[in-house]
Amino acid sequence: MLDSLFRPRSVAVIGASTKELSIGNRVIKNLMDFGFTGPIYPINPNADEIRGLKAYKSILDCPDGIDVVHMVIPAKFVPQAVDDCGKKGVKHIIINSGGFAETGPEGEAIQKDFLERARRHGIRIFGPNCQGIINTDPAIRAYCNFTFTRPEPGFISIVALSGGVAEVIHQAFAQMGVGTRIYASNGNAVDVTIPEILDYLGRDEGTRVIVTYVEGLRDPANFLKVASEVAARKPVLAMKAGRTKEGARAAASHTGGLAKEDIATDLIFDKAGILSFRDEGHLIQAAVAFATQPIPRGNRIGIITNTGGPAVIATDVLVASGCTLPPLSAPTQERLKTALYAEASVGNPVDVLATGTAQHYRACLEAMMDDEGFDGVFVNFVTPFFVDNEAIAREIVAVNRERRKPIVCNLMTDPKPWAEVVRILREGEVPCFPLPGEAARAMAALVRYRALCERPARTPRSFGDLKRDKGVRILEKARAAGRHRLTAAECYRLLEAYRIPVARWKTVETPEEAAEAATAIGFPVVLKADAAGLLHKSDRGGVVLDLGSPSAVKRAAQQMKKDFDEPDLRFLVQKFLPGGLELILGAKAEEGLGHAVVFGLGGVLVEVLKDAVFALTPVSPAEAREMLEGIRAKALLDGVRGRPGVDREALVEMIARLSQLLIDHPEIQEMDLNPVLAFADRAVAADVRISLR
Amino acid sequence: MLDSLFRPRSVAVIGASTKELSIGNRVIKNLMDFGFTGPIYPINPNADEIRGLKAYKSILDCPDGIDVVHMVIPAKFVPQAVDDCGKKGVKHIIINSGGFAETGPEGEAIQKDFLERARRHGIRIFGPNCQGIINTDPAIRAYCNFTFTRPEPGFISIVALSGGVAEVIHQAFAQMGVGTRIYASNGNAVDVTIPEILDYLGRDEGTRVIVTYVEGLRDPANFLKVASEVAARKPVLAMKAGRTKEGARAAASHTGGLAKEDIATDLIFDKAGILSFRDEGHLIQAAVAFATQPIPRGNRIGIITNTGGPAVIATDVLVASGCTLPPLSAPTQERLKTALYAEASVGNPVDVLATGTAQHYRACLEAMMDDEGFDGVFVNFVTPFFVDNEAIAREIVAVNRERRKPIVCNLMTDPKPWAEVVRILREGEVPCFPLPGEAARAMAALVRYRALCERPARTPRSFGDLKRDKGVRILEKARAAGRHRLTAAECYRLLEAYRIPVARWKTVETPEEAAEAATAIGFPVVLKADAAGLLHKSDRGGVVLDLGSPSAVKRAAQQMKKDFDEPDLRFLVQKFLPGGLELILGAKAEEGLGHAVVFGLGGVLVEVLKDAVFALTPVSPAEAREMLEGIRAKALLDGVRGRPGVDREALVEMIARLSQLLIDHPEIQEMDLNPVLAFADRAVAADVRISLR
Repeated sequence: MLDSLFRPRSVAVIGASTKELSIGNRVIKNLMDFGFTGPIYPINPNADEIRGLKAYKSILDCPDGIDVVHMVIPAKFVPQAVDDCGKKGVKHIIINSGGFAETGPEGEAIQKDFLERARRHGIRIFGPNCQGIINTDPAIRAYCNFTFTRPEPGFISIVALSGGVAEVIHQAFAQMGVGTRIYASNGNAVDVTIPEILDYLGRDEGTRVIVTYVEGLRDPANFLKVASEVAARKPVLAMKAGRTKEGARAAASHTGGLAKEDIATDLIFDKAGILSFRDEGHLIQAAVAFATQPIPRGNRIGIITNTGGPAVIATDVLVASGCTLPPLSAPTQERLKTALYAEASVGNPVDVLATGTAQHYRACLEAMMDDEGFDGVFVNFVTPFFVDNEAIAREIVAVNRERRKPIVCNLMTDPKPWAEVVRILREGEVPCFPLPGEAARAMAALVRYRALCERPARTPRSFGDLKRDKGVRILEKARAAGRHRLTAAECYRLLEAYRIPVARWKTVETPEEAAEAATAIGFPVVLKADAAGLLHKSDRGGVVLDLGSPSAVKRAAQQMKKDFDEPDLRFLVQKFLPGGLELILGAKAEEGLGHAVVFGLGGVLVEVLKDAVFALTPVSPAEAREMLEGIRAKALLDGVRGRPGVDREALVEMIARLSQLLIDHPEIQEMDLNPVLAFADRAVAADVRISLR
Repeated sequence: MLDSLFRPRSVAVIGASTKELSIGNRVIKNLMDFGFTGPIYPINPNADEIRGLKAYKSILDCPDGIDVVHMVIPAKFVPQAVDDCGKKGVKHIIINSGGFAETGPEGEAIQKDFLERARRHGIRIFGPNCQGIINTDPAIRAYCNFTFTRPEPGFISIVALSGGVAEVIHQAFAQMGVGTRIYASNGNAVDVTIPEILDYLGRDEGTRVIVTYVEGLRDPANFLKVASEVAARKPVLAMKAGRTKEGARAAASHTGGLAKEDIATDLIFDKAGILSFRDEGHLIQAAVAFATQPIPRGNRIGIITNTGGPAVIATDVLVASGCTLPPLSAPTQERLKTALYAEASVGNPVDVLATGTAQHYRACLEAMMDDEGFDGVFVNFVTPFFVDNEAIAREIVAVNRERRKPIVCNLMTDPKPWAEVVRILREGEVPCFPLPGEAARAMAALVRYRALCERPARTPRSFGDLKRDKGVRILEKARAAGRHRLTAAECYRLLEAYRIPVARWKTVETPEEAAEAATAIGFPVVLKADAAGLLHKSDRGGVVLDLGSPSAVKRAAQQMKKDFDEPDLRFLVQKFLPGGLELILGAKAEEGLGHAVVFGLGGVLVEVLKDAVFALTPVSPAEAREMLEGIRAKALLDGVRGRPGVDREALVEMIARLSQLLIDHPEIQEMDLNPVLAFADRAVAADVRISLR
C-alpha cells in the first residue's frame, strides 16, 4: 500500500546538504516552500542545521514515525543507509541519486544489494535515479522532489518513469494555471512499479484523471491487468513514445533497454480502455478538459462564438475527430432569435457577434444545455475591448458550475490586460485553450472517452466443440521431432481441431495419388508442393491453381517432382475456391502477453497497402468486429460494384476460434492463414503456416 | 502600390469618438500607444479634442498629406465620406465598420456605391468590415487597428481576411515573445485583395516569412499567380480551413459565401510553392522558426539534450516528418567524449546529462555545426536549478548568432524563476517551444521548405505532334449537336489527336460488323455497348471481356441488342489487354482555374481506398512524377511479388499530354480514362468518358 509514500507523516533527507545548489538542499527547500504539513528531518553528519531545520547525524537519531526518506548520497553508501532505515522502521525510500543499473554492472550490483536489504526490512523503494513524488492535497503538501514546477492543487495525477516528460507535462499544466493532484516519476523503478502507482491513483479520490507516458512496458501483462481495472474506474490518458525505430533506440539509450519497437503497447492501451495519444500537447489539453468536465453523452457539439474564422477551424477539427454539429432545434432557434442581436447567426456555430454581451452568451449556453440535441458546448470567446468580458466570463462560469454538459473554451485574449477574465474562467474551472484546434481536440477527447466507455463488452466467446487435446498432441509431436514449423497436414489438422473452416485438403506422396485425391475432393483443385525446406513455394512454382482434371493434377505434380529437389516432397491437394475475397488472418507471440492477432486484406495488397489491424488475445467477438471495421478497405467486406458482401460473422467466429487456439497453445510463435477466402455465406482458410517458439 | 497604406505619413479617423469603449476612440488610442510616427487627425463634428489630440469637424479641415483614413461610421454615411476623402487627396481608406455586403442587398448597394466613388477618386479601400493593418517598423509604428495584441517588431507578416484567426495567430506570437512585422486583415476585401497584400509583403524587406489563413479563394488564378511569385522569393506559410463539409458551411455563414468545399486550394498551395499546414498551432510554430533560422541544406538533424524522454518524443516526431538522425561522425564522437562527462551519451541524441554545463552545450553545438553530417540542430534544454542555466542559454545564443545551421529549442522551464534564461534566448533569436513535439515540427517545417525549394522545375512539356485543330473539330461537332457527352468514338479520336495511347478500337453498327472488326483488330477483344443513354454499361452487362472468336463476338453483340433498348445502340470493339495494372487518370474543371487532374489506382479499389492524387493543369512531367510517387500503393508501380513494374515514363507522358489536351480544350467539364492499363513497356487507355461544360 503506497498511502504512506504519497501521504507521509514525516520526511527525512539522507544526504541533506548546506549547499544551496545541491539536490540534498533543494528537496528540503521544496518541502518547506510547498508547506509540507509534517516534520522534515535533514540528515547530515557534519551540520547542525540546514535551512533553519535541526539536522541529525544519522537517521537513527531522528524521532520515530518516518514514512519517507530521500536518499541523495553516492550509490555505494545506499545499501548501508537502507539498513539504517530498516532499523528505524522507515516505510519508503525515494532514491534520487543515480549510479545504479543505468550505469553498468557495478551499479547493478549495488542496486541488487540495497534492494535485497530493503525487502528484508519491508521497506519499499521508489526509484532510484528518479525525481520523486508530489502530493498537492492541502492536508499533505508533500513535495518530495527536486524539480521546480510549483503546482496548484487539482484533479490530474501524472505518473511516468521519465522525469523529463513528466516534468514537461506538469509544467504545461502549471503554465495553463491548471492544478495537479499527485505527481510520481520513479526512474529505474526497481521496486514500486508504474502499475502499482496506477492502482493507487485509481483509488485516490482526489484524482479524477490519470496521465501517463511510457516508452515501453516492463511487465506488460501486469500493466494490462492493473490498467484495465483502473481505467474502468476513471479516465486514464496515455502516450507512448519511441514509436519510430530511431525513437525506440533513443529511448533504449536513456532507459537502459526498457523500450522496444513494438505495436503491443497500443494494443494494451486499447484493450485496457486507456485513451491513447500520439502528441504530448493533445494529451495535456485533453487532461485539462477531463479534470473538470463531465463526460458527454454523445458526440453532438454546439458551438458558440463571437468571431467567425476560429469557429471554422473548431468545426473542422471537431468533425474530423468524429463529432457532429447538428443544427439547433426549431424551439432553440426561436429562443435565440429573440435573445440575440438581429444580425447574429443562429446556426451551429451560433455567432453572437463581436459585440455580443454576457446576456447573449448566457442565453446561448443555457439554450444549448436545454436542447436535447447537444451533448457538449464549444465556446469561442475573443475579448473585444468594447464589451464587458468579465461579465461574459462570469456567465460562462455560472453555466459551467452546473456541470450539465461539458464545456471547452477557446479563449482568445491577451492575458495581461484581461487578467481578470482569465482568473474568473480558471477559478470557475472552465478549460480554456488559446487555439481553436486545441479546444476542439480536448472536446473530441471527451467524446472519444465516451465511446470507449460504451464499447460492447469484450467477453471472450467459449466454444464447446474444440478438441484441445488433439491440438496438444499435434504440437507435441512436432516438438518431439525437433521441428519448429508444422507440416501442412499438421497445420490443417490443428485448425480443424478448433473447427476453423479450411478448404478441403489431402496430402499424398505421388503424382498418381494426387490425381486420385483430386477426384475425391472434387474439381477444380489446387496442387501445392509440401516439404520442410519449401518456404516461399508459391514464388517458385510450388502452387498450381485451378486444375480441372486428374491428368492435369498428375502432370502438375510430376513437374513439381522435377522442379523441387526435396527428399521429403509431398503434395497437398486442396479444393480450389475461386471468387472469394482474399483476406489474411495471422498471429504473433508477444513477449509476456499472449499473441497479437492480425486481420487484413490479403494477397499482394497486404504487402503494398499494409491495410491490417491488430488485437491482443483473448480476442472477443466484440473486438473481432472492431477489427473488421478497422481496415481501410472495409467497404470490400460489405460488397462493392455488384460484388456481394462477405459473411462477417463467419470471420468474427474464425478470429474468436483462432484466439482460443492461441491461448490453448502459447508455444505457437507465429501463424498465418493467408489467404482466408471470404464468401457471402462462409469464410475458409486456404493456406496456413504455423511456427513454434 | 500599397506603400502608403502600410507606411502612412499621417492617419485620420472619421468617426473618432470621445467614448473610451468605442472603436472610433480605440483606433486613436492604439495609434498613440504604439507610438505612430506621424500625425493623427480625429474627425468629429462635435468634439474639440479626443485623447488630447485636436479634433477636426471634417476631413476637409485637416492638414494635407493624409495617406490613411479610418472610417468608423455607420455604413450609410460612408459614400459621402469617401467623396470628402477624394476631395482631400486621401490615398487609402480602412473601413472598420460593417453593414455592407455581409448584411444583405441594402448593404451591398452601399458597398457598390462607395466603391465606385473611391475608384473615381483613385482611393484604395481596405475592408470594409475589417480590423485593419499594423506595421511594427520602428520608422512607422502604424497600429491602424482596433484590437488589443501589442506586437514587438519582428520578421513575420500575417495576412488574412478573417480578423479572428489573424488575431489568434498574432496573439500566439505575442505570447511566445516573438515579434511581427506587418499585420493585415481586410474583411470583405472589396478592393485591396489578399494577392495584392501578398505581393507587397513579398517585396517588403522587413518581412522574412509570410503567414496566411484562407477559407476559400475569390480569384484563385490570380492568387496562384501572385503567390507563386512571392513564394519564389520568401517562405509563405498557409492554412486553409473549412475543409470539412460542416467547416465549409460555417465559413460560408460568416464570410458570405466565399468558401466552398474543395480540393483546389491545396493544389494551388502546392503549385505555388506555399508550405501548407492543417493545424494553426503547427503553422504558428513553424513561422517562429522561419523568422530567425536559416533554411537547412538537408534533413539530417542532430539532437542535444539534457533529459531523456523529451528527446525520444522529438526523435519520433522528426523521423515521422521525414528527417533523419544520423550518428555522429567518428571525429565528432571523439571530440565530444573528451568534452562531456564520462557518463554522457555521445549518440544522436547526445545526452549531456542534467548536470551538463554551458561548456558542454557549447561543445556539442559547435561539434554539430562543424560535422558535415548534420543540417540542423535540435536542442532540448530543461533548466535544473543546480547548473548555470543562463550560461547555457548564452552559449546557445552565441552559436545561434552564427546562423550556420538552423537551431530549434525545446525549452522546458518555469518562465517565472527562469525569466532571465527566457529573455536571453528570446533576445538571442533562438526559437523556443515548451513541448518537444512543437520544436520538432518547427524544425521539420524548415526541412520541408528546403524540399519544396529543391523540387524539380515544373516546366510543362510541349509536344510537337499534337493535332489541336482536330480536337477543336471533335468538340465543336458535339456541341453543335447539343451533346454534353462525347461518343466513344469521339473520345478515342480526341485522345488519338493528342497521341495518348488507347487500346485498338472500332465502332460498328451490327453484330456481324462487330465480328469482322474483331478479326481485324485481333483476338481477344472486348465488346462494349455504346449509346448516349448508356452510362453505367459495365454494371448492366454492356461490357464483355476476353472474347476469343468471331462467333463469340457476334453472340455477345446479339445478346446486347436484346438487353438494351437503345435506338442509337452501336458496338465498340476493342483489343483486350489482360495483365496490366489498372489505373485511373481523370480530370475535372475547376472554377476559374483550369482543371484538376487525378491519378490513382483503378477498378474497385479506387472507390474503396480512394488512393488518388491530384494536380492542377498545366501538369509538368515533374508534377506527374510526383503524382506517381504520391499514391499509397505506389509499390505496385514498381512491381511486387514477381509482378513486373510498369512504364512510369509512359504514364508521365500520358499525364503531360492529357494536361495539354485540357489546356487546349477548357470546355471539357470532366474526363475519365478508366482503366488505364499499365505494362512494363507502355500504358494504354482502355475506356474513356468525356463530358463538356
